[in-house]
Amino acid sequence: MAKVDLKMMAAQLGFSVSTISKALRDSHEIGEKTKQIILDKARELGYRPNPYASYMRHQKSKTIALILPEMNNSFFLQVINGAESIAREKDYHLLIYITHEDAEQEKNMIEHLQNGRVDGIIMAITLNTKSYDHLERCIDNEVPIVFFDRVCHEIETVKIVTDDFASAFTATEHLIQNGCKSIGYLSVSDNLSIATKRMSGYLEALHKYDIPLDESKIIHCVSDQNENYQMLKDLLIKNPDIDGIFGSVERFALLAYDVCKELKKRIPEDVKVLCYSNLPAADFLSPKLTTIHQPASEMGAMAAATLFKHLDKKRSTITNENIVIKSTLMIRESSTVRKEI
Amino acid sequence: MAKVDLKMMAAQLGFSVSTISKALRDSHEIGEKTKQIILDKARELGYRPNPYASYMRHQKSKTIALILPEMNNSFFLQVINGAESIAREKDYHLLIYITHEDAEQEKNMIEHLQNGRVDGIIMAITLNTKSYDHLERCIDNEVPIVFFDRVCHEIETVKIVTDDFASAFTATEHLIQNGCKSIGYLSVSDNLSIATKRMSGYLEALHKYDIPLDESKIIHCVSDQNENYQMLKDLLIKNPDIDGIFGSVERFALLAYDVCKELKKRIPEDVKVLCYSNLPAADFLSPKLTTIHQPASEMGAMAAATLFKHLDKKRSTITNENIVIKSTLMIRESSTVRKEI
Repeated sequence: MAKVDLKMMAAQLGFSVSTISKALRDSHEIGEKTKQIILDKARELGYRPNPYASYMRHQKSKTIALILPEMNNSFFLQVINGAESIAREKDYHLLIYITHEDAEQEKNMIEHLQNGRVDGIIMAITLNTKSYDHLERCIDNEVPIVFFDRVCHEIETVKIVTDDFASAFTATEHLIQNGCKSIGYLSVSDNLSIATKRMSGYLEALHKYDIPLDESKIIHCVSDQNENYQMLKDLLIKNPDIDGIFGSVERFALLAYDVCKELKKRIPEDVKVLCYSNLPAADFLSPKLTTIHQPASEMGAMAAATLFKHLDKKRSTITNENIVIKSTLMIRESSTVRKEI
Repeated sequence: MAKVDLKMMAAQLGFSVSTISKALRDSHEIGEKTKQIILDKARELGYRPNPYASYMRHQKSKTIALILPEMNNSFFLQVINGAESIAREKDYHLLIYITHEDAEQEKNMIEHLQNGRVDGIIMAITLNTKSYDHLERCIDNEVPIVFFDRVCHEIETVKIVTDDFASAFTATEHLIQNGCKSIGYLSVSDNLSIATKRMSGYLEALHKYDIPLDESKIIHCVSDQNENYQMLKDLLIKNPDIDGIFGSVERFALLAYDVCKELKKRIPEDVKVLCYSNLPAADFLSPKLTTIHQPASEMGAMAAATLFKHLDKKRSTITNENIVIKSTLMIRESSTVRKEI
């Protein structure tokens, strides 16, 4: 079947391509009767306006990009779900890119996306993003960026975050109230604001309960999980007094379970464990994992909705704003004193 | 900052827009010296060719769509990962659409994507897709579709599947060899070929071991998990002899655990459970879940690679082919006789 285009309609109806085009755009230059004939023909032939031709007229791609740092993660899965639903509602298309924590890759993607392919970007930066020029330049080039979760506070735009400080404080306090006196902390890259905020929440709770800070109990994890495994194992061997583990991102959850298993440390009897995580299986782990659950789908939806709100307003600068959505501490077996049966 | 376009370069260099355009396309009509001046200027100004303008010249969007039926699923997460990596390698862009098991939604998306927005589609159909006209029409309109996992055998194209019959047979045999005499089967929509093939594998294994088929022990699950919960609960109450549960897709795994918990049936002592699943947490569930693990990332990568292979060949018809990738039975605690310690 040949593709139905303006030329084919022009040939069949005996109008010029320009008349057909104007009629389909509802131009005032074309009479109502002619318009109706053309619209009827378009329907009959199943004409679908080409998005690229439409872009050339309106300079709108009706497409946004979602740039994710990794994909082995329930959190980002739920973010896609939220963003996709809002994009569809707004009749927009959603491109997905995964940086795999590669800052150079992120830079290339951002550079490339300024060529008109997308009207805006939703993203969480990589663990290794250290300079922000490429992001700044992208916004200057009128391709707005909305950050979520892993945000750049240095850049003036909308950032969708959870209450990282407060939730980490509450979780650490929960461990202390359940008897932990020596809590190992698994951090991610210091470049990330979520990392510094979550760690501040942890430190503040230690301070409140007069637990001296021991920096050797903080591990700075890397992208390579095998390396993280070794670091956590070393930590627990060198510090046999550690009775609590706080994982600051989801991929440390099963890692902590794994290492404790190898070292024959019982959870929660010997070591209590909790983690930022959206794992649907948390309730079925052995023991059930205490999690700080982030409203991931809502964050994705909110990021998309905020971007669209800005795109709807022509030629305005995107507002500099922090939108904070609350996380929930889901207390389960891994962090509480086990009841004897 | 103003966008760098052909017009701006023409003004700065004193060439016509047409000369600039031809030079950037490496046309033989333009002399080497002029070409070099123009390419140098393009680099200096940071000119990025507009993908929409490029489409208008070459009729290629350099974009493919991935249509997924649901997102609460590790399998589809890993498929995205595989497809995205191949798309990036080929310098293509990946659009994501989620049908949420809505056949009408699927039809609309497919209709819409024939307008030139994408060069091809990778997809798994919904549970409720009963007619295939929209898919047939899409391929006729020269937008090729590659199916994965949930495929349409009625349509002539490439289908990437796992060995559904063989893996279901092996898994059922494993349950029988571990003492199960009455195995409940949780099926999905009969419209799906994976559903019929997996069920045939189950039936064949029953037959081999002379276990009579009892159709009342097969549940046909729906999209609504609460309804599925009730159906499985009713099944186990009405058939107290059931000593095995076979979940034919991932979302039945935690469901089976949940229902057994409510009915105080111990896994694996009272009921053995296994499930098609790519849950990374399977090894940490209580008890550890026996899974049939599908090579999801490979399937996504293979689907993308096959689509690109076809797109590279101009004007040929896509081959009608089944590509089968093997699944692995990962035997864990939930399906085996518990050893006394």
